Amino acid sequence: METDDHATVGALRQAVAAFVNDRDWRPFHTPKNLSMSIAIEAAELMERFQWLTPDEALAAMGEPAERAAVAEELADIVIYCLSLSNALDLDVSSAVLGKLQTNEHRYPAGEFQGRFRRPQRNKR
Amino acid sequence: METDDHATVGALRQAVAAFVNDRDWRPFHTPKNLSMSIAIEAAELMERFQWLTPDEALAAMGEPAERAAVAEELADIVIYCLSLSNALDLDVSSAVLGKLQTNEHRYPAGEFQGRFRRPQRNKR
Amino acid sequence: METDDHATVGALRQAVAAFVNDRDWRPFHTPKNLSMSIAIEAAELMERFQWLTPDEALAAMGEPAERAAVAEELADIVIYCLSLSNALDLDVSSAVLGKLQTNEHRYPAGEFQGRFRRPQRNKR
Amino acid sequence: METDDHATVGALRQAVAAFVNDRDWRPFHTPKNLSMSIAIEAAELMERFQWLTPDEALAAMGEPAERAAVAEELADIVIYCLSLSNALDLDVSSAVLGKLQTNEHRYPAGEFQGRFRRPQRNKR
Repeated sequence: METDDHATVGALRQAVAAFVNDRDWRPFHTPKNLSMSIAIEAAELMERFQWLTPDEALAAMGEPAERAAVAEELADIVIYCLSLSNALDLDVSSAVLGKLQTNEHRYPAGEFQGRFRRPQRNKR
Repeated sequence: METDDHATVGALRQAVAAFVNDRDWRPFHTPKNLSMSIAIEAAELMERFQWLTPDEALAAMGEPAERAAVAEELADIVIYCLSLSNALDLDVSSAVLGKLQTNEHRYPAGEFQGRFRRPQRNKR
Repeated sequence: METDDHATVGALRQAVAAFVNDRDWRPFHTPKNLSMSIAIEAAELMERFQWLTPDEALAAMGEPAERAAVAEELADIVIYCLSLSNALDLDVSSAVLGKLQTNEHRYPAGEFQGRFRRPQRNKR
Repeated sequence: METDDHATVGALRQAVAAFVNDRDWRPFHTPKNLSMSIAIEAAELMERFQWLTPDEALAAMGEPAERAAVAEELADIVIYCLSLSNALDLDVSSAVLGKLQTNEHRYPAGEFQGRFRRPQRNKR
């Protein structure tokens, strides 16, 4: 089975498209339904960490069964993201690389070392 | 800029990792924070369709500005998914292809043509 | 059992607090965990409508079993909202009535009849 | 302005209903749209804690401006919950008290002191 080193995003999109089309599920794949589905799966991923402290979450990530569960939830999210890109014919790689470039300018590395907010004079 | 035809998932993961490391943001990238972030961005995607009827959503997807906005929200979600795969060293392609295989057996194409639920004798 | 006509928000908050305290669950009820929990339950509510067309959703709301399921998901969300108000000692009624007042000014009834966005000269 | 001690859930529902009806917004308040809206607001609440450690979140809750922001996000979620109860004519108090009762049996206080999962022989 292909791994991230060799699998193109396009190949994954095709695998998802084949699965969806084989079941004639495209009619359900409206952008509204798919955006809802991504959020639903994102919540299932959050559930794995719902009550864990940071240390407990770290320990959990050392357990193979728990890592596998997280990987499966992540796969569900990504599959719906790829379904949306297929439904709307959006190029995921261009969108990702383009957004990283936008963020390069929005969050210059020099000013945002180890921080996610510009230093402010008044508190918050 | 690379498109889905040629960009490997690994290349996108590296681009995301470089961005995150340049800002020393890895300490913020705990699995709990990242799962929260994916859900937050998923909600921003849903917002684009919040009050639209199916027809209005379809029409919106024909407008370049709206497509671009949706592509940007999708990019945000995928960037956090890739950040999580980097933080936990999870292979996204294997997870996705593995889950599609699991789903092949859970939803045999023969039984699930145009339906997402097995036909049931009692209502629902 | 009390209904909305007579039940005060305070009485519901107390019922939730008693349940949580009886199980010594307050330590888990950090604002971060509770905000995550609200989102997780919100996703379970969305799941009930995930693939339904507007007409199918309407029809589903006429079925007692489905209404009961939706009521239970809504209860889960509200219980976590009340847990958060207890954890942070926030008055829910004041917050709700205050936000409605803010929204009265942000969305004057005269300008927002049957619309959620001000009419714009350029498209979107 | 009414506080939780005296405000009935019904009074809050009426306030929300008046606001919605004054703007003729009921047609937008389909159960699917409202479930989406609850999730969208839940994400805005999570955003306030997105990158904070447990200690930072605790400290933030001591700052009046931050408490007010959280109260406002909570209000947004509750307003949509009440909108949904109005749209579907669901009694929130009955649903909440009923679910607490269900949970009393599902999580007997004796067995679930300070834990959210039954003790298990095999790890996880």
